[in-house]
Amino acid sequence: MSKASELLSVVTDDIKQVEEKMRSGIPAQHQSLQSVVDYLVGAGGKRLRPALTLMACNFYPVDKDKSFSLAASVELLHTATLVHDDLIDNSLFRRGMPTLNVSWSPGATILTGDFLFARAAQLAAETDSVRIVNTFAQTLMTIVGGELNQLFNDGHDGIPTEAEYHQRIYAKTASLFAAGTECGGVLCGAPEAEIRALRDYGYYLGMGFQVIDDILDFKGDEEHIGKPVANDLRQGIATLPVMLYNRQQPNHPTILKAVRREPVSDAEILDIVDKIRASGCVEAALDEAVNFVRQAQAALEPLPDNPYRRAMHGLADYTVTRDI
Amino acid sequence: MSKASELLSVVTDDIKQVEEKMRSGIPAQHQSLQSVVDYLVGAGGKRLRPALTLMACNFYPVDKDKSFSLAASVELLHTATLVHDDLIDNSLFRRGMPTLNVSWSPGATILTGDFLFARAAQLAAETDSVRIVNTFAQTLMTIVGGELNQLFNDGHDGIPTEAEYHQRIYAKTASLFAAGTECGGVLCGAPEAEIRALRDYGYYLGMGFQVIDDILDFKGDEEHIGKPVANDLRQGIATLPVMLYNRQQPNHPTILKAVRREPVSDAEILDIVDKIRASGCVEAALDEAVNFVRQAQAALEPLPDNPYRRAMHGLADYTVTRDI
Repeated sequence: MSKASELLSVVTDDIKQVEEKMRSGIPAQHQSLQSVVDYLVGAGGKRLRPALTLMACNFYPVDKDKSFSLAASVELLHTATLVHDDLIDNSLFRRGMPTLNVSWSPGATILTGDFLFARAAQLAAETDSVRIVNTFAQTLMTIVGGELNQLFNDGHDGIPTEAEYHQRIYAKTASLFAAGTECGGVLCGAPEAEIRALRDYGYYLGMGFQVIDDILDFKGDEEHIGKPVANDLRQGIATLPVMLYNRQQPNHPTILKAVRREPVSDAEILDIVDKIRASGCVEAALDEAVNFVRQAQAALEPLPDNPYRRAMHGLADYTVTRDI
Repeated sequence: MSKASELLSVVTDDIKQVEEKMRSGIPAQHQSLQSVVDYLVGAGGKRLRPALTLMACNFYPVDKDKSFSLAASVELLHTATLVHDDLIDNSLFRRGMPTLNVSWSPGATILTGDFLFARAAQLAAETDSVRIVNTFAQTLMTIVGGELNQLFNDGHDGIPTEAEYHQRIYAKTASLFAAGTECGGVLCGAPEAEIRALRDYGYYLGMGFQVIDDILDFKGDEEHIGKPVANDLRQGIATLPVMLYNRQQPNHPTILKAVRREPVSDAEILDIVDKIRASGCVEAALDEAVNFVRQAQAALEPLPDNPYRRAMHGLADYTVTRDI
């Protein structure tokens, strides 16, 4: 399998322009804001979302500048939600760098996130496509709605069903992957069937990506991930490995306490993590991630063969092998 | 002069539909969110922004449903910024009702504001006009940028110049008034010169409206306004009455301490409020508000005479006499 950077090389030059767009558009009088946006953009990440968006944009001849605006909009929307999430969760690090809320007041952090939402909306509007703007707004509603659901544990305080879990990881991750690849197809004027294929690819890839994220939460490499092992469960969120374990060994008291948001000791967490690791449920979850990724690859079928499609196919493989 | 409700009667029926739109569009699974949106919409206010937007929409035959979406978008954008502002300022009441942050966690309050931004963007997109979406995004950037400037006191920690004050009240209030009336003109296909006139009207009206708000802060009717007298100055913000007083009596120590965000006692505040009230500076500020409002009325000149224009003219008069 090719490495991620090789796969991403079809859009490397474009990504630089996207980062330029992400930093731009801040009125000169907002110096403090410019420095913080530069910091957030510099903190980077793999740029998987804008890269996939750009690939989807290039299936047909496209207005390059608009493709940069679209990809920048997707990544800034993602960045804005992370800025608010890190504040809400009181997270101190992201991608190995201190989060904004560590050094800024809650007020400044909230407003910075709001500004990034506005800038993302403006960049979406630069595509001159109402359909894209609408998808953008719908995706933000999906993401925020999912977070609110998680916060309120709306409707129940138990272990999620498979359908509930899928809804959650769709809201959290797959919705924005799908929006990016769909809008890429819209922007380059792909036929509807191919737009649909691009959306499906983004959807299944995002689902697989989030399952892997949830698995990594059990890998326990704290230094690497920057969070304690089973961070989700500590916060009362049962992800796929927990759900699968609960099917094998129903109603373990630690899991029940955690999802009811009752206090759970570190020793109890480490004990249940050991049990889950020994149960084979992490591997079973990985099978599900691989299954999603295979569906992403199958979704590419109707699309014309080109370097972008090949890169998207390869990135799907990469998604399930990253950091594992 | 007619009373406000009489002036608003040209759009009363439409406003009901706008409120319907404001409550709608929340996926069925988000019950907690629906109840809070119902609460926020029910808490009401005079609906001046959507009313002006609707009036501007009706200068030419318009798609009524799109005009409701536009007006709902304007009011939800306003509501979203208030939800975040009240959290940031730790305000406990708004329009005589407890704010969201009183009963909800900061996280839930942040996410509710985010959801309202997304829904407002979606409603703006329902107009099918990229120009409207773009104005929407630009306005949100202006509003949030202004708040960040205020938070950081970017660039200086003194008494603002007239230009700085105008920039601040534009960002805070006039930008959204102007966006609403401009987009109304865009939606009904008014000629560019009339769109410009509608924007100018909204701009000047919003400027006058905010000057009056800043004056009311010195009127000291705590029960009526729900805030202590000179609340802005207590938070280190010098508004027009303070600026005018500082021209008469430069560098009063209480004012200097306040704008440097140093602690100021209640007695010191009440003393400077008495001095400002006795100085004639509140009346001088009112003259400036009246001047803005006259410019708003003059801006209506190029527009065809009709009940909407007449209501807009009358509402301008109302703006400077409300609660005074």
